[in-house]
Amino acid sequence: MKHALSVTREQDFAAWYQAVISEADMAEESGVRGSMVIRPWGYGIWERIQKLLDERIKATGHENCYFPLFIPLSYFEKEAEHVDGFAKEMAVVTHHRLIQKDGKLVPDPEAKLEEPLVVRPTSETVIGAAFSRWVQSWRDLPVLINQWANVVRWEMRTRMFLRTAEFLWQEGHTAHATVDEAMEETMKMLEVYRSFAEECVALPVVAGEKPENERFPGAVATYSIEAMMQDGKALQAGTSHFLGTTFSQAQSIKFQNAEGQQELAQTTSWGMSTRMIGGLIMVHGDDDGLRVPPRLAPYQVVVVPMLRDNDEDAAILDYCGDLVAALNKQDVFREPVRALLDKRPAKAANKRWGWVKKGAPIVIEVGGRDVAGGNVSVLRRDRLYREDGKLDSQIVAKGDFLGAATGMLEDIQQALFVDAQARLHGNIDKSITSLDALKAYFAASKKQGWALVQWAKPTGPALDKVIEWLKGEKLTLRNVPLDAEAADGACVFTGDKAVERVLVGRSY
Amino acid sequence: MKHALSVTREQDFAAWYQAVISEADMAEESGVRGSMVIRPWGYGIWERIQKLLDERIKATGHENCYFPLFIPLSYFEKEAEHVDGFAKEMAVVTHHRLIQKDGKLVPDPEAKLEEPLVVRPTSETVIGAAFSRWVQSWRDLPVLINQWANVVRWEMRTRMFLRTAEFLWQEGHTAHATVDEAMEETMKMLEVYRSFAEECVALPVVAGEKPENERFPGAVATYSIEAMMQDGKALQAGTSHFLGTTFSQAQSIKFQNAEGQQELAQTTSWGMSTRMIGGLIMVHGDDDGLRVPPRLAPYQVVVVPMLRDNDEDAAILDYCGDLVAALNKQDVFREPVRALLDKRPAKAANKRWGWVKKGAPIVIEVGGRDVAGGNVSVLRRDRLYREDGKLDSQIVAKGDFLGAATGMLEDIQQALFVDAQARLHGNIDKSITSLDALKAYFAASKKQGWALVQWAKPTGPALDKVIEWLKGEKLTLRNVPLDAEAADGACVFTGDKAVERVLVGRSY
Repeated sequence: MKHALSVTREQDFAAWYQAVISEADMAEESGVRGSMVIRPWGYGIWERIQKLLDERIKATGHENCYFPLFIPLSYFEKEAEHVDGFAKEMAVVTHHRLIQKDGKLVPDPEAKLEEPLVVRPTSETVIGAAFSRWVQSWRDLPVLINQWANVVRWEMRTRMFLRTAEFLWQEGHTAHATVDEAMEETMKMLEVYRSFAEECVALPVVAGEKPENERFPGAVATYSIEAMMQDGKALQAGTSHFLGTTFSQAQSIKFQNAEGQQELAQTTSWGMSTRMIGGLIMVHGDDDGLRVPPRLAPYQVVVVPMLRDNDEDAAILDYCGDLVAALNKQDVFREPVRALLDKRPAKAANKRWGWVKKGAPIVIEVGGRDVAGGNVSVLRRDRLYREDGKLDSQIVAKGDFLGAATGMLEDIQQALFVDAQARLHGNIDKSITSLDALKAYFAASKKQGWALVQWAKPTGPALDKVIEWLKGEKLTLRNVPLDAEAADGACVFTGDKAVERVLVGRSY
Repeated sequence: MKHALSVTREQDFAAWYQAVISEADMAEESGVRGSMVIRPWGYGIWERIQKLLDERIKATGHENCYFPLFIPLSYFEKEAEHVDGFAKEMAVVTHHRLIQKDGKLVPDPEAKLEEPLVVRPTSETVIGAAFSRWVQSWRDLPVLINQWANVVRWEMRTRMFLRTAEFLWQEGHTAHATVDEAMEETMKMLEVYRSFAEECVALPVVAGEKPENERFPGAVATYSIEAMMQDGKALQAGTSHFLGTTFSQAQSIKFQNAEGQQELAQTTSWGMSTRMIGGLIMVHGDDDGLRVPPRLAPYQVVVVPMLRDNDEDAAILDYCGDLVAALNKQDVFREPVRALLDKRPAKAANKRWGWVKKGAPIVIEVGGRDVAGGNVSVLRRDRLYREDGKLDSQIVAKGDFLGAATGMLEDIQQALFVDAQARLHGNIDKSITSLDALKAYFAASKKQGWALVQWAKPTGPALDKVIEWLKGEKLTLRNVPLDAEAADGACVFTGDKAVERVLVGRSY
């Protein structure tokens, strides 16, 4: 069976990932180090993510704001642990003017900033400063805000969508009167991410707490959702942090409680980024390109007229136009169907394969014979081939297709999720009780999934030792799943009595 | 008549502008030089602008992309006129890491960038570089894209929404095979801006071509829409540029035409920004705060229950909840009505005035007596007071209000536009034929509007002389209105035969 991409997942997963991005016209290198250009199909998926996630963020009581891109150095100096975590990868603005010198443009030495500005890697500090202005009394709490923005972290090794110097995300920031309320918020947003990933991205995830060494710089506790890629590696697809009083102390977010005493607010932050698109590719892509879950597809049904530059063309275009109009009048997932008539002047077969590579959920082809018979040819992107290896293009009466289209989109959304969930559940080994077995499990195959092992939750130097060993095996601790069974044995790392179960895996 | 703001437009227009922004909780100083924090009500208006303008940009065939924030210096060196226009106000990234030195954070000298990066002031150069990769043949044209992004121009004097170092905008960029097609695009997007401003922002504007000295750096022709503020000054609210081959030459955007020859593409760009919110305030605000046109209001109807901490409260809340639910089920301007139940624990009168200052189009108050009588108290933000100076709060049967609400919202949208249009048309003097008269016109009152005068369209040094004179009077040339009558007299500046009419005014 010949596939549309030049390289398969089996041959070279990393090369296949780049091929999907390129062949589906999702993104490309920009010529600017570590930054990519997100092209319409990639950005269209991001717009869908924004819309559906934003609805959920607002439905849980948050409002959107916008805070400055530039953060003065002094804001970072107030929180040592936070700055330690980000100092190595900060882009710094030092001048505000260019001049010509020896025929070249250079920063003007006369326009050096008194205080350099950091391009935000995350906004706890500058948003904390705003919270300190907004919060005076317990009546001002909670503060529940979110921002959609670009951030910059100067990564040395970059990879499109997964790790780029500049990326797009949303970052939620909240302040509360009590630890309980802040923890409730932290877990609520973790659940928003879990349900969004599973329901919209069709991405089954494991929600849990990150071990100490993987916490966000400055956080008291960090929670994540982890997704399993087709190569078995883990991708952290969203994080929610309980920050305690770390930032309220640094930025002086204080309030008078109901008893008249001054207290520090308890804050949280949580974020999801364009990284999610990398996860979508590596979970749903196949050797013919991307498969976009219908809820995220910029176009859910693409109609390709098979034109022949003859008299029949006008009738075919009319027929296709009616079909698209009828589809767009229907609702699916409580939104109007997004159907497109692809009128570009190119060969129908090329257009078909273009949409297959982009992963449009349903591709319809209409030729003269279809018009005469009142039919359409239907290609479902989630089941492209028949058992005999031939393309599973089905001829269906137009009316039947119109009656079945929204159900088919719901089916495809569900099928992608079920497939990915079976893969996730089928590739977590829960039986490993020794370091040798752990080592052997991951040595057996590069595509092995994860191991859920019991551990004693060591801290400090004891944890460092565990991390050191894992590092030698190119392994990482992912999270302690919220829904894992209680521990009932020995720690796989230390032999001590285990207190919980932690996921181990390779990661992106 | 006492008003809600501490300062009136009459007393001090600039202070009034700041008071609206502050009292309506739209934005605030961030502590970062030249950058503001856009708070939920201000950002909510921006989200509405984004949604409605984005629909129009997409309906005219454009797709959204995302390009890098950072642009290497070398990209600017290729286009001298463009860089001359922006070099003075560019934020420059020179380092990618911070270190601790003598207890302070400083840019790490070891992490100096080989080539400094400019934080985009606009994206013609970096998008042009992408176009040069995308465009090979006439079949690849036109390329029609848009991006929503933040940009930075290091302005020395900043003013919230009107002129900030960082601002949010959309920038459209297109490439075409011919001058005619590129000019058609330039004018099409000018018309999109005009209709968007008038239909959605209720902002009457004059669309026209900018004189030579006001062109975008690198443009062959620049068109703008100009709006008249309540103090008579002009605000440029959107621009559309025909760039000819300036950027296709610099970035090498070449294509093979149908005859097999290499040609340079003709490009355009066009933008509208958060500045529009400043215009909205200065056109629709009054001495009680902002008045948001219903199409842009984050909430169109706000329901304030008059609670008294007694047994009646539950019934009032139920009644209000039903009202909001019934409103949200209705459609206005082809979207669901946006109604809010304001349940915050504060005095009803304070909440009412809060919404008046924010400019929610309709504020409903409901007390125990209203529930008993099946009524609501309706306050229309566009006509707040009766002729006797008292608040024009009208008691209406609930069912009657529900039947009339969407019509009332349409009325308010229209009323704001009609008011602003009368002000615009009533304040353009078309009779001035001498420099003395021009001087006298603007000297007569600071709130004078504009003058439409005949001119010979001088260029080069002759134009410089005109600009010089205008500068002495603190005046600027706004644009040459597309719909102005033909010239039939002498140039007010030079006495030569006039060729067209140009708008003169003070400006933001």
